[in-house]
Amino acid sequence: MVAPRVYQALHQPIVGHLDPYFFEVAEDIRRLLGYAFSTANEFNIAISGTGTSGMETAVANFVEPGEKFAVLANGYFCDRLADVARRHGTVVARLEKPWGEVFDDQEARDFIRREKPRVVAYVQAETSTGAFQPGHAICEAAHEVDALAIADCVTSLGGMPVLVDETGIDIAYSCTQKGLGCPPGLAPLTVSPRAWERLRKRTAPVDSFYMDLRLLESYFRDRKYHHTASATMFYALREALAIVREEGIENRWERHRRNHEAFVAGVEALGLRMHVAAADRLWTLNTPCVPDGVNDAQVRQRLLSEYGIEIAGGFGPLAGKVFRIGLMGYSSTEENVAKILDALRKILSGAIK
Amino acid sequence: MVAPRVYQALHQPIVGHLDPYFFEVAEDIRRLLGYAFSTANEFNIAISGTGTSGMETAVANFVEPGEKFAVLANGYFCDRLADVARRHGTVVARLEKPWGEVFDDQEARDFIRREKPRVVAYVQAETSTGAFQPGHAICEAAHEVDALAIADCVTSLGGMPVLVDETGIDIAYSCTQKGLGCPPGLAPLTVSPRAWERLRKRTAPVDSFYMDLRLLESYFRDRKYHHTASATMFYALREALAIVREEGIENRWERHRRNHEAFVAGVEALGLRMHVAAADRLWTLNTPCVPDGVNDAQVRQRLLSEYGIEIAGGFGPLAGKVFRIGLMGYSSTEENVAKILDALRKILSGAIK
Repeated sequence: MVAPRVYQALHQPIVGHLDPYFFEVAEDIRRLLGYAFSTANEFNIAISGTGTSGMETAVANFVEPGEKFAVLANGYFCDRLADVARRHGTVVARLEKPWGEVFDDQEARDFIRREKPRVVAYVQAETSTGAFQPGHAICEAAHEVDALAIADCVTSLGGMPVLVDETGIDIAYSCTQKGLGCPPGLAPLTVSPRAWERLRKRTAPVDSFYMDLRLLESYFRDRKYHHTASATMFYALREALAIVREEGIENRWERHRRNHEAFVAGVEALGLRMHVAAADRLWTLNTPCVPDGVNDAQVRQRLLSEYGIEIAGGFGPLAGKVFRIGLMGYSSTEENVAKILDALRKILSGAIK
Repeated sequence: MVAPRVYQALHQPIVGHLDPYFFEVAEDIRRLLGYAFSTANEFNIAISGTGTSGMETAVANFVEPGEKFAVLANGYFCDRLADVARRHGTVVARLEKPWGEVFDDQEARDFIRREKPRVVAYVQAETSTGAFQPGHAICEAAHEVDALAIADCVTSLGGMPVLVDETGIDIAYSCTQKGLGCPPGLAPLTVSPRAWERLRKRTAPVDSFYMDLRLLESYFRDRKYHHTASATMFYALREALAIVREEGIENRWERHRRNHEAFVAGVEALGLRMHVAAADRLWTLNTPCVPDGVNDAQVRQRLLSEYGIEIAGGFGPLAGKVFRIGLMGYSSTEENVAKILDALRKILSGAIK
């Protein structure tokens, strides 16, 4: 769900992509993204595409063909990172883990020290599993071997602590339509000074013009035309970030944590088991297991048609095994927790022993 | 300027990128884009990025590293096409022409027959110069040597005849914020059956995940998740295309032609000369020359501050030499022609002998 104030912002009259007012909006976004990402990075922008364009921008700029790209692979978006990295000519090294589990510090360190890649990528908030991957040891080990650390924060930004600087993340990207409560259409991205240093030394052209960060820097900083950014989407993102600032990022995390825990307590009381271990759960996306003998598609269909609630199913190795229930951004409310629990209770009653 | 009905459409409640209603909207867009592009192609989509992402999608999918990419180069966006093609590993062959002139049939044919490229690209409507490049001979020669023809239609779609099928264009792309009168944020794109045949035989992965047309096909046709398309932007584009359909594409072209000619007559009466020869002019974007002794930046500044009219200046070889005055989409009106002519008359009076 999108916050009503953000819907209002979509209405503001369009200005050109080189209008001084547009750059004021972009500057507000730059500053507010630093707050939401918990970073002192100066380079915080919104890529003119959806979350996946943020992922591809992060990868394409920081690898060159033939370099080693290490992925900690425990879900769908880790696989996507590996796919993107291969398309950009890298040699991919993977460390595998079942979907829903997370890597402990030592195994992450051992993997990175052994592989000595140029870039290490991991998914902080894995939308396909509901698991949160801590990144401190990953980033530390990456820096030890002179690699950069990329973190996918698509389902954490605005909903739980991303903590870019404290974690040591060099490139973090996200989307607008989850924890920020904005329509989809832009991909927030932040880049550390360490990563910029690497980029400045790069001699091979980035193999995408649209996603070339040095061109994007000269657009947003020097106001040199690169592409026609959408004022509409920038208005919406600025408003969504202003709401985050007003609520206070810690209060926002706390709201997400509280509603997540209320949901878990309620769903466990209904007899369902959570797929992810208690310590590793996202607060934004919950993955209770589908009880034995229950058809998950039927449950989702009834939720949508009888209760007006849209939830997602599992896919890949988790197809038919988990529900994926978002409580994020504007939608993370006590009312929504009560609604989904009540609907699940009615639909599942009798189906669970 | 954006049509008021399009602003209204931005307000529609967001649905998910896999919601059946979202695919209804995408299907309307597919059908209406066929109408606006004058094509029977079945594959008409909106790329989730701005116009330049349409350009990069067109290039990245239809070339493989080492292949020859021919560009008819007579303006800034031709140079950008060449830059994008080089980044995707092609060998670029260029035929040069001064900015503002167009290629005649014979020289285009000779170039293409000599170079025998895999892809030929040209800019139908060159935003940097105001020139319209006819494409029939280009596309015919391209097909003779088994090349595909890409046309940049960013400044023609919705404002003048793009005529994809009649011209023989294989891949055409555009933007939403010019002739269609929509906010920027999407890149309409159409692909011919001939180009799809080439794409189906492709074995090397496209070097972009975000812009991979086979993945986008399986998203829009088979509803298989690829990225989170922005319902908001799709609502706006559908409304803008519905307006085109209601007005009638030929009526819309005629409106643009009439207002363009009124502008030219008026600006010539003020003593200004048009940069582009009469037969080669865009109806959407006018490029009168800056009179001797006149500072174009000052004129633009006064237009903006005293009259609330934003026009653009020339750049590259045309910096300081032309004004670029858009009359496109919702903004192509008799009133706007009268307004800009009146303002120019007042600002320039005395400056022109």
